[in-house]
Amino acid sequence: MHKYEEKTLKTEEIFNGKILHVQVLEVELPDGKTSKREIIKHPGAVCVLAVTNEHKVVMVEQYRKAAERALIEIPAGKLEPGEDPLEAAKRELEEETGYACAKLEPVTAFYTSPGFADEYIHLYAGTGLEKLSNPKAGDDDEFVDILELGMDEVREMIRSGKICDAKTLVALQHWMLEEARK
Amino acid sequence: MHKYEEKTLKTEEIFNGKILHVQVLEVELPDGKTSKREIIKHPGAVCVLAVTNEHKVVMVEQYRKAAERALIEIPAGKLEPGEDPLEAAKRELEEETGYACAKLEPVTAFYTSPGFADEYIHLYAGTGLEKLSNPKAGDDDEFVDILELGMDEVREMIRSGKICDAKTLVALQHWMLEEARK
Repeated sequence: MHKYEEKTLKTEEIFNGKILHVQVLEVELPDGKTSKREIIKHPGAVCVLAVTNEHKVVMVEQYRKAAERALIEIPAGKLEPGEDPLEAAKRELEEETGYACAKLEPVTAFYTSPGFADEYIHLYAGTGLEKLSNPKAGDDDEFVDILELGMDEVREMIRSGKICDAKTLVALQHWMLEEARK
Repeated sequence: MHKYEEKTLKTEEIFNGKILHVQVLEVELPDGKTSKREIIKHPGAVCVLAVTNEHKVVMVEQYRKAAERALIEIPAGKLEPGEDPLEAAKRELEEETGYACAKLEPVTAFYTSPGFADEYIHLYAGTGLEKLSNPKAGDDDEFVDILELGMDEVREMIRSGKICDAKTLVALQHWMLEEARK
C-alpha cells in the first residue's frame, strides 16, 4: 500500500455511458480527513507510431468534438472489451489508415489524464507497412484524413503547435530520440 | 469550418461537479447521420518542466485516485477561473515543490484526451530555480513527495515504464531532445 493511498469511503455512480463511466468518490486522505474525487472510468486505448519504408509517419486528421476542432494525431482507438492491446493496435491502424504492418512492437504505456481519468494508452511502433487493397472499415461515425509526414515536417508542426495531442507528442518525440541515437 | 465538423443538435447536461462537467451531445456527422458524443469539460491545466542548476528535473510523486496508484509526474495543476497559465505554472511549482524560478518559458500546449475531454494543458520550462524558505501551501487534499532526478535516471525510468504519465513524458522527452541538440 502506498503511504498516500486514498481509501474509498463511498462511491456515487453518476453516469454509465457508452464509453465513459462517471463516479464521485468520497475518500479518506493520509491525514484522516475526507475529500471528494470526480473520476472518469475509461476502457483504455491504443495508439500506433507507424513509419513507412520512406521514413514518413502515418497520421490522421479528424474532428474532435470535445475540443471542437480538428486535430492531427497518430492512429488510435479504444480497447474493445477483453481485447488484447496489440490486436487493437493492428485493428485501429488498419481501420483508420488502411495499412497493415509486418512488425508491431510495444514502446510504452501511459495515463493521459491521471488527475481525473483512468484512461491508460498503449503505444506501439509499427514498421514494414503495407497498404491493404481491402482494409476493414472503422466505426461509421469516424471521418478521418490520412497524412504521411517526414521528420522535418513533424518537427516544425510540433514547434508551431500544429500538433497538439499528448499521445501524438509522446510518440513523435520518441521517434525523434530513437532516430537521433542511430 | 472544418469539413468534418460535427454540429451539435442537442446537449444533455449529465453532471456539473466541482472540477468536471459531463455532457452527452447529439451531433450531426459529415454524412448527415447522427451520433452521440460523451464529453468531459475540464478547466484546463498547466505543468512545469523545472530543471535545477545541478541539471536535475523536479518531479512529484502522488497518489492518483483515478489510476488507483501513485505516479511520478512533473508539477502540474488545474487553472483557476480566469487565471493566466503562466501565473498558474508559477503557483503550482511553488505550491507543489517549494521552488520559485527566475525564468519560465512556454514550451507547448496540448490536449490530453481529445477523444472525450477538452482538457488543454500548457507546458512551461522553468530554470534559475531557487528554494523558497516560506512557500505558499497547496491544496489541503494533496500529499506529494518531491524527487530530483538526473537525465540518466529519467531515461531509465521512461524505459522501464516507471514514468507513465503523458504530460510528464512530453516534457521529459522535450528536455532530452533539447539537450541532445546542444
